[in-house]
Amino acid sequence: MKKNFKKVNAAIIVIGNEILSGRTQDLNVSFISKWLNEKNGISVNEVRVIPDIEKKIISTIRELKKKYNYIFTTGGIGPTHDDITAQSISKVFKVKYVYHPEAFKILEKYYGKKDFNEGRQRMVWMPSRAKLILNPSSGAPGFYVKNVFCLPGVPSILESMLPNINNKIVGGKPIISKTISLITYESEIAKPLKKVQELYKKVDIGSYPFFMKGKIGVSIVLRSNDKLKIKNCEKQVLTFVKKKRIKIINRD
Amino acid sequence: MKKNFKKVNAAIIVIGNEILSGRTQDLNVSFISKWLNEKNGISVNEVRVIPDIEKKIISTIRELKKKYNYIFTTGGIGPTHDDITAQSISKVFKVKYVYHPEAFKILEKYYGKKDFNEGRQRMVWMPSRAKLILNPSSGAPGFYVKNVFCLPGVPSILESMLPNINNKIVGGKPIISKTISLITYESEIAKPLKKVQELYKKVDIGSYPFFMKGKIGVSIVLRSNDKLKIKNCEKQVLTFVKKKRIKIINRD
Repeated sequence: MKKNFKKVNAAIIVIGNEILSGRTQDLNVSFISKWLNEKNGISVNEVRVIPDIEKKIISTIRELKKKYNYIFTTGGIGPTHDDITAQSISKVFKVKYVYHPEAFKILEKYYGKKDFNEGRQRMVWMPSRAKLILNPSSGAPGFYVKNVFCLPGVPSILESMLPNINNKIVGGKPIISKTISLITYESEIAKPLKKVQELYKKVDIGSYPFFMKGKIGVSIVLRSNDKLKIKNCEKQVLTFVKKKRIKIINRD
Repeated sequence: MKKNFKKVNAAIIVIGNEILSGRTQDLNVSFISKWLNEKNGISVNEVRVIPDIEKKIISTIRELKKKYNYIFTTGGIGPTHDDITAQSISKVFKVKYVYHPEAFKILEKYYGKKDFNEGRQRMVWMPSRAKLILNPSSGAPGFYVKNVFCLPGVPSILESMLPNINNKIVGGKPIISKTISLITYESEIAKPLKKVQELYKKVDIGSYPFFMKGKIGVSIVLRSNDKLKIKNCEKQVLTFVKKKRIKIINRD
């Protein structure tokens, strides 16, 4: 994968009534975000969950594809009536919604001629000139048009497809993250942590309470694409932690 | 809770870099959505996940509070520097960010005078005239201003607070949901299911593949606030399922 040294960002659009109704727990956002951060140096700056409504899908993608370098959509590319991502993307880019010969070949081979029925054939209709994202686990490919990458909603299938995108996106400087987990309360460290944040404005410092095996603690997470800044910032945190005699239970 | 018979909707805004980076798996969206649907007849029409950036929090809340009946935010109401929800909401409504005497009393009692330190006292600063949402599990209250309800990010704490909101919102007609789980493929039922959807435009029909104990299946989910329409729609689905000799493994 090519790298540049600019900051590269992305947004994720989850398309699906089942997520909005609470019926299904989304797992894709966290998976895509980690993969973008760790493998590609791309940070996710926004996520939207929207219903299976064509107008809403079109307006959301049109708005976000201008704001962010990459857009990843999940859901809505299967064979049923509520799968309307591909036709919506055609309208986003004002291109025709067409039969994709390469996708047809892939699926005909996957299912066999006999079982490649009308329902399944719906999955080979895509925006004109869409490029395929191959699916090693269940045949039906995803696709991308310009900076918009369309993936399925089923987590295990989506996960199997992400490696096939690594060579299609240009990432930024990898984002490094350090976590220091302490046995303390947030209020105990709020003041010195704020001072460290003021000193290191380009390091994103987060503070997250946790409850683990009957213990209450706080994880301090430092994130930046500047290795030296992270290192110095970590030193400052460790200094006040030592001074306050707070127990460290984990560092990674 | 009062009920009216209009459709009532909501949006959820998840405030937190830890969700965007993939470090933390969000669990609150599905919990809030189910509670709104089942207990209050309110459907969630949109979710946004945004970073801990004041400008972004303000613009997102300003945009969505006009579009939807209720807004629920999660995260950013703790004692550390990255907790900026309360001050952002003050700016959304152009009111002062002030010390809340009732919240002060609650937290002073909760921690005891000695342990109610500066860090913890930060949590009693809120938008002027904010009303409290009591927190039975960890003291620090959430708050609401007009139609914007601000809750914490830790799932167990958030869950303990939701019952305290039931009497503060006016819901709609309860949304009923029926699920029929089949041993089949989506492509097998795509055509008849589409026909049913065309007949029952006011029932939201979703189709979700699943993999369970080595079996591949599809759950058909019917959702509507019209009991009779759901019942008739279900009949139509069962008719084509029987005709195609598809095995039903679950109905609820």
